[in-house]
Amino acid sequence: MRIAVYVYDGMTALDAVGPYDILNRIPGAEVTAVGHGRGRKRAEGGLEVAAAADLDEFTTADVVVVPGGGAQGLAEQLRNDRLLDWLQMRSGDVAWVASVCTGALVLGAAGLLHGRRATTHWRARDHLSRYGAVYVDERVVEDGNVMTCGGVTAGIDLALTLTLRLAGSEIARAVQLSAHYAPEPLFPPEHPDRAPSELLTIINEQLGPRSVDVG
Amino acid sequence: MRIAVYVYDGMTALDAVGPYDILNRIPGAEVTAVGHGRGRKRAEGGLEVAAAADLDEFTTADVVVVPGGGAQGLAEQLRNDRLLDWLQMRSGDVAWVASVCTGALVLGAAGLLHGRRATTHWRARDHLSRYGAVYVDERVVEDGNVMTCGGVTAGIDLALTLTLRLAGSEIARAVQLSAHYAPEPLFPPEHPDRAPSELLTIINEQLGPRSVDVG
Repeated sequence: MRIAVYVYDGMTALDAVGPYDILNRIPGAEVTAVGHGRGRKRAEGGLEVAAAADLDEFTTADVVVVPGGGAQGLAEQLRNDRLLDWLQMRSGDVAWVASVCTGALVLGAAGLLHGRRATTHWRARDHLSRYGAVYVDERVVEDGNVMTCGGVTAGIDLALTLTLRLAGSEIARAVQLSAHYAPEPLFPPEHPDRAPSELLTIINEQLGPRSVDVG
Repeated sequence: MRIAVYVYDGMTALDAVGPYDILNRIPGAEVTAVGHGRGRKRAEGGLEVAAAADLDEFTTADVVVVPGGGAQGLAEQLRNDRLLDWLQMRSGDVAWVASVCTGALVLGAAGLLHGRRATTHWRARDHLSRYGAVYVDERVVEDGNVMTCGGVTAGIDLALTLTLRLAGSEIARAVQLSAHYAPEPLFPPEHPDRAPSELLTIINEQLGPRSVDVG
């Protein structure tokens, strides 16, 4: 089972590595970091992750995962015709095309979300309609062979759902336990629509280099 | 605020990248992947992550995070005197020395867990006593300036707890929301002591390249 996780300059590292690490536990899975060109890609915040294969070396796959990224890195991918063509071609023969966070917008730009139910990071949800997608306020959304999920940490939930679809519930349950996935958020998870405005201001104005402003 | 995430051949990628990505959101934080030598480190499963600095270039830090790894990679770190000396030196002046998963054993080998309460991946819990640590069955454990956590995905909970300690509850809450951390495990999280034995057999015999067997 061949799984490609696309990596690029400006991606959000956890968007890519969460699914990489979880999917890699599936018996027989071979997970590869694939890039527009081999070699180092610099995630937002500076972490460098290497693409082990170029897009052209990955002409067959069972699953493709596209992570989200910050404004600039994401904008580059939204107009990366080579990537978008590759995604269109792969979408015809893979079992699943998946995205994490704002990676959904890349699937949209590749024409894969037209008329489909999909989700993304809450900060980017208004952008999905550009691509003809119907935004769904759920953690993981499946429509046809397209699977999308919420922001950043949702990639773990997406990867477990992919594991369920690809390898069945017994393996998925074992993978969840092997990854010690019994999360304990520090605060009760908040819905962005009900979060205090001060919190949104902190996110917009003070937090680290990441931004999902793809306006 | 300078934060070092140690990276090494054989580490579990998500153990390192979860905290890297979360801590990187703290206003003013500068997170660096630090290695025994700069350059690429090959995580279990093949993902390559670059160390941007060598241990010797990182003589002051506010936080140090040590990820866990598979049997071979971990065993190498448990006898890596240069790393263990560095951790001992840093532990005297950092605000926090932290570990994810079996990274706790590395802290133990550096002599930092003697007489302390600590935790690790459930599969490695019996090994903590070698280092004079008292195993605690909790997700995140703080004792003095040492913070340890459970396996793999617990690194996200650890990083949010570090964020709380370093930057206060308002920032931590904003970071949690910015990372869209409203997890929905596919199955009700299981305690390993109460999981069916078939599940443990699958983990031991069938799952991907990872193993926390440090026997």
